[in-house]
Amino acid sequence: MDEFTLIRHYFAHGGAVRTDVTLGIGDDAALLKLPEGCELAVTTDTLVAGVHFPAGLDPQALGHRALAVNLSDLAAMGAEPAWLLLSLTLPEANQEWLAGFSAGFFALAKRYSASLVGGNLARGPLNISITAQGFVPAGRALLRRGARAGDAVCITGQLGDAAAGLQHIQTGSFDPDDACVRAFCFPEPRIAAGIALRGIASAAIDVSDGLLADLAHLLEADNLGATLDLAALPLSARLRATHDLAAARQRALIGGDDYELCFTLPEARLPELQARLAACQCAVTRIGSVDAAAGLRLRDENGVVQSIAAAGYRHF
Amino acid sequence: MDEFTLIRHYFAHGGAVRTDVTLGIGDDAALLKLPEGCELAVTTDTLVAGVHFPAGLDPQALGHRALAVNLSDLAAMGAEPAWLLLSLTLPEANQEWLAGFSAGFFALAKRYSASLVGGNLARGPLNISITAQGFVPAGRALLRRGARAGDAVCITGQLGDAAAGLQHIQTGSFDPDDACVRAFCFPEPRIAAGIALRGIASAAIDVSDGLLADLAHLLEADNLGATLDLAALPLSARLRATHDLAAARQRALIGGDDYELCFTLPEARLPELQARLAACQCAVTRIGSVDAAAGLRLRDENGVVQSIAAAGYRHF
Repeated sequence: MDEFTLIRHYFAHGGAVRTDVTLGIGDDAALLKLPEGCELAVTTDTLVAGVHFPAGLDPQALGHRALAVNLSDLAAMGAEPAWLLLSLTLPEANQEWLAGFSAGFFALAKRYSASLVGGNLARGPLNISITAQGFVPAGRALLRRGARAGDAVCITGQLGDAAAGLQHIQTGSFDPDDACVRAFCFPEPRIAAGIALRGIASAAIDVSDGLLADLAHLLEADNLGATLDLAALPLSARLRATHDLAAARQRALIGGDDYELCFTLPEARLPELQARLAACQCAVTRIGSVDAAAGLRLRDENGVVQSIAAAGYRHF
Repeated sequence: MDEFTLIRHYFAHGGAVRTDVTLGIGDDAALLKLPEGCELAVTTDTLVAGVHFPAGLDPQALGHRALAVNLSDLAAMGAEPAWLLLSLTLPEANQEWLAGFSAGFFALAKRYSASLVGGNLARGPLNISITAQGFVPAGRALLRRGARAGDAVCITGQLGDAAAGLQHIQTGSFDPDDACVRAFCFPEPRIAAGIALRGIASAAIDVSDGLLADLAHLLEADNLGATLDLAALPLSARLRATHDLAAARQRALIGGDDYELCFTLPEARLPELQARLAACQCAVTRIGSVDAAAGLRLRDENGVVQSIAAAGYRHF
């Protein structure tokens, strides 16, 4: 099969059918209609074999994961996913791989009614670059800036599982049904939570590089700091069963790949927040407070506070 | 420099300033406003080292070229460029390379008032993936479908230079000021021509894989064919000076990388077409006619017509 046949076979159906797609895959560009009163939220993220995932990762997991990391950026803006573009560079036209990859990709896309409207398929070292577009009512997007001293710092879901899962995968002897392995392979973008946070979160970011690194990005936008309560970090039973407390907390703080939403909001709105996120079945934990003084601090069970550097993955 | 510093230094300024960019580079996603009454035209194209360009190609040429191939897709839709995303995967943070690449990229982007609103920078084998977005008044885009039997087939500019230029580059002993080398390195997307063709061209495509291959895509959309006049193919003086006539025509027909617009229109509108493209200083040549019978045919100076297969680059 040449690339045109491969595209027709695995991708041209586009997944979800949307009435705002005037023209989908197959021309020089797609033609799209934005709903009135909405802004377009646009993000792009690339996964490189051996950098963002272990070479040889299950293609279905990879198709899911490549899309999930992009949808997670839309979630962090409070946007509703709509249109996707996929640039796939592959060393060979392995049909088993393409079948798995496209199955993982479209299963997730359909769950959020997102439609693939264009892309590119070329030969070369494995590289997956996705552009995701979504809608947000004008002026209502969640931004990284906007936090205020005294705001609560919250996180959805649990932290550290994906980093533990990645290590299991890298050792080569892993159980694909292990909760941590699944957290790395099949992260669930927090779309409903992001939409629920419109008008209540003062600032938001998704956790891809690790809690400390990403929270630092959020705080830097307003030259603020934060103190986190170590005892409050939400750790899964599976993580606790396989790590001592210090190691589990380390994974939660700097592990990365969680794709949870980290956000701030005024203390007074915590009850409303709990109600909104309960309504979309999303766990949420208050893990600290925003400080006027820049920098990150950790408070242990004894009330001892220590400064800590924000560490995250660096490509260069 | 880590990737955040590199992004700040080389890319975060975004190039052109646009009032429809509510939020540019630096958050989880960009926020954009589409003008009323417009559809969004969206395309993505990837360049892989050693596949789409010779490894070691001048970075300024590469920055220009990577963007130009995407803008050319917008031109083929009759769209006006607006917003760009750039996913760059690099083996190392070579600052001289980044300075050249970003200079080539932004010089072209600014010429068309296009703004870089997001992207990704990661380490890995060289891969450049760009998403380009543009505006077109609703219902006025140029599509691949729409040609009719009897329509004239036209092409902007000249064909074959880029393919000749690529061969010069591949031999390693080339003059960077050679017109053919420049045609490969610095193709000019036919934005003004694409806009001028709204409402007059019945169908359009840009020539990336070669005239025959791309014209075949256009014709297949309506199950039509075409007969081209060999003597009408627009060949540059430089191409003719370095190739015999048969070799020059071969480059024009199957060479690829031209990024000219190939389009069809009713015969009766040829004078209007000439006037419109003259107004935007774009050369145009009628090279044949659309046939009701599928397939491509070439007519030589003696009136002899022969069928020819559409050949284009295939990745797999």
